Amino acid sequence: MSAFSRFTPLAQTLPSTVPFVGPEAIERNRGLAVRARLGANESGFGPAPSVLEAMRKAAETTWMYSDPENFELREALALHHGISRDNIAVGGGIDGLLGEIVRLVIEPGAAVVTSLGGYPTFNYHVNGFGGRLVTVPYVADREDLDSLLAAVRRENAPLVYFANPDNPMGSWWDADNVVSFARALPETTLLILDEAYGETAPAGTIPSIDALIGQPNVLRMRTFSKAYGLAGARIGYAIGTLGNAQAFDKIRNHFGMARVSVQAALAALEDRAYLTDVIARIAASRERISQIAFSNGLSPLASATNFVTIDCGRDGTHARAIVDGLMEHGVFIRMPGVAPLNRCIRISVGPQDDMALLEEALPQVLQRVANSK
Amino acid sequence: MSAFSRFTPLAQTLPSTVPFVGPEAIERNRGLAVRARLGANESGFGPAPSVLEAMRKAAETTWMYSDPENFELREALALHHGISRDNIAVGGGIDGLLGEIVRLVIEPGAAVVTSLGGYPTFNYHVNGFGGRLVTVPYVADREDLDSLLAAVRRENAPLVYFANPDNPMGSWWDADNVVSFARALPETTLLILDEAYGETAPAGTIPSIDALIGQPNVLRMRTFSKAYGLAGARIGYAIGTLGNAQAFDKIRNHFGMARVSVQAALAALEDRAYLTDVIARIAASRERISQIAFSNGLSPLASATNFVTIDCGRDGTHARAIVDGLMEHGVFIRMPGVAPLNRCIRISVGPQDDMALLEEALPQVLQRVANSK
Repeated sequence: MSAFSRFTPLAQTLPSTVPFVGPEAIERNRGLAVRARLGANESGFGPAPSVLEAMRKAAETTWMYSDPENFELREALALHHGISRDNIAVGGGIDGLLGEIVRLVIEPGAAVVTSLGGYPTFNYHVNGFGGRLVTVPYVADREDLDSLLAAVRRENAPLVYFANPDNPMGSWWDADNVVSFARALPETTLLILDEAYGETAPAGTIPSIDALIGQPNVLRMRTFSKAYGLAGARIGYAIGTLGNAQAFDKIRNHFGMARVSVQAALAALEDRAYLTDVIARIAASRERISQIAFSNGLSPLASATNFVTIDCGRDGTHARAIVDGLMEHGVFIRMPGVAPLNRCIRISVGPQDDMALLEEALPQVLQRVANSK
Repeated sequence: MSAFSRFTPLAQTLPSTVPFVGPEAIERNRGLAVRARLGANESGFGPAPSVLEAMRKAAETTWMYSDPENFELREALALHHGISRDNIAVGGGIDGLLGEIVRLVIEPGAAVVTSLGGYPTFNYHVNGFGGRLVTVPYVADREDLDSLLAAVRRENAPLVYFANPDNPMGSWWDADNVVSFARALPETTLLILDEAYGETAPAGTIPSIDALIGQPNVLRMRTFSKAYGLAGARIGYAIGTLGNAQAFDKIRNHFGMARVSVQAALAALEDRAYLTDVIARIAASRERISQIAFSNGLSPLASATNFVTIDCGRDGTHARAIVDGLMEHGVFIRMPGVAPLNRCIRISVGPQDDMALLEEALPQVLQRVANSK
C-alpha cells in the first residue's frame, strides 16, 4: 500500500467510502445515461430565474474570497427568521455542518443516537470521529421519539440526530411532538434537528423558531438544497443559541464558502413568490408520483418532503431490482439502506418529462422483476 | 454563556476565531470602503473570460449535487499533470484540504513543525485538532529547510508544513533543494508541500511531478485561487500516492463541492493561453509594486508569488500603521503576523487602477506615519 505509514489509529480503521454513490458513478460504472434524475432529492424544478440571474452576475466577483463571516447571508437569514444573525452559523450544506457538530461533541467511543436506517451521511461523520452509533428502529415508518429519548437516557449520549420531516421515509411529526421531545432531552444531550425538508412540510410540522431558540442543547439545520433548488451550491445553516452558533467558528473553514453560491442563497431568500410556487409544484409532483405508484399496485407513503417513498411490498432484494431496473431506462432513483425500510424505493419530485419517463418505465420494470422470480 | 454544556474538552479550549479578518469585516468595523483589494493574494485580473462564460452556463445545473467522486475534474487534472486521477484528491481550497490532512495525521499533543510566521490557517487547523506547533524561524526571509528537518527529527513529528513559494514572504527554494528536503525526511513524517503559488514561480522552483509522486510521505497542494483567479470558487487539490489520495475519502465531505466552481476549474484548465497571459501580467504587477516601494524608500523583497512583501525597515507597529493608513485610502493590504517578518507589509498584485491608487496613497501614508512619531 502506498499510503503514509502514520495516519492516526482512528483514520487507519476508516474505509475510503462514500455515503451515497453518485448518479455520475452509476453512469460510468454501468455504461448507462441518466435521463430522469430522481434519486438524490434534488429539485428538478431548479432555483428561481432570479437566482440564476444573480449567479451569472456573481461570476465576475469569483476572483474574491467570500466574506469569512458570512455577514450578509447571516443577516438576511436573521431577517427571514426574525432572529439575530448571531443565532446562525453558515456552512457547506447540512452535510458539512453535521461533520462540524460531530467534531465539536464526539470523542472516540461516545454514544450517538439516531434511527436505524436514518441519514447515512450523519453516520459517516460519527464513524469518522470514532463515535459509537446507537440506533433505534423506525415504528410505522416514522422515527420513534420515545425510543430515541429512552436510548439517549440509557446511553447518557451527548448527541442525538432527528430529521423532521424524515429522510428516507418522508414521514413527519407535528411541531408539538418535536418540541416536547426537545424539551425532554437531558441538557447534556445535543439535539440535531435536521429540517432540510422543512419548506415542503404541512403546516404545523415545523416548530416556530422561538419555540427552541433559547435551548442550548438544540441545533436546527436548514438548507438551500431542497425546496430552493440549490443542491449544487452547498449552502446550509444551523440555527441555535449564540454560544452554539459561535462554536462553529472554533473549527470551521472560514474561507470555505463559494462566492457564487452565497449570492445564490441571498437571491433565493428574496424571491418568496418563486418559493411559494415551487412548493406547490413539488406537492403536485408528489401527488403524481403517488398516482403512478398506485396505478402500478404499489403503496406510496405520505410525504412531507420533495420525494415519495413507495412500499413495494416485499424485501430489499425486490426493491433493489426495481431501482436497478429503472436505471436501465435512465430513471435514477434510490432506496433506503436497511430492513424493513428497504422494502421501499424513494423517488424525488421532478418536472413533467421526468414523471413521464417514470410512468413509462415503472410498469415494464415491475413486469420484468415479477417474471424473473 | 448559552453554549451546549458538553462540547469536547478540546473544543472547549478553542477560541471562536478567524485566521484572517476579511476585508468586508474591516469595512464594516471601521466604516471604510475598499477601493483596491490588494490584501488577500487574490487575483484582481480575475479568471479567463472563457471561465466566466462556463460559470454562467453552469448556473442552470446548480440544482444538482456535484459528482461526489469529482471524476471529471480529477481526470482533467491528471491529464494536465501527466499522472493518474487516483493520485489526486479534490477539496474546498487548500484551506479545506489542510484541515483534512491534520485530522488524518494529528492526535492531541502530536508535534507539527512549521515556520514561525508561516501560514496561519494551517496553524489554526493544527490547534483545532489539538496538535502542538513547533516553529522554526525564517532565515533571511526564507523558510529554513535545515532547521525544519532538524526540528522534525528532534520532535519525531508526524507532520511538517512547507510552502514553496512562501507566503507571507514571497521567497522560494529551488526544486533541487525541495526534493532533497523531501527525501531527507523520515518516512514517518508527512510533508505538506504547499505550492499554492507554483504557477507564478520562476522556472526551476517547482519540482517535477515525477520527482515526488512515489513518495508516501509527501502531499503537494495546488489551487485555483491564485494564478487562475478563482479564490471565491474554493477548489484546491492534493497530489500524492494512490493511498494518500484515497485517505481523504475516509473523512471528506463527499458532496461538498459547488457545481459551478467545479465547472470553473475545468474551464480554467482548458484555457492555457489565458494562464500564460495572466502570469505575465502578475509578473508585471509585481514589478510595478516593487517600483512603487523603491520610489518611496522601502525595500521590496524578491517574489515568486502574486504578491510583493516589502521591508519597511522598522518594526511591527510601524508596518501596522502603514497597513491601517492605506486602508483609510481604501487600499486593503495585509502584513506578516510575527517578528521579524512583521517589519514588512504584503501587497497583492492587481490591475492598473489598483496600482494607481496604491501609488497615490502610499507616500501620503508614509509621511503621516513619519510625522506621528
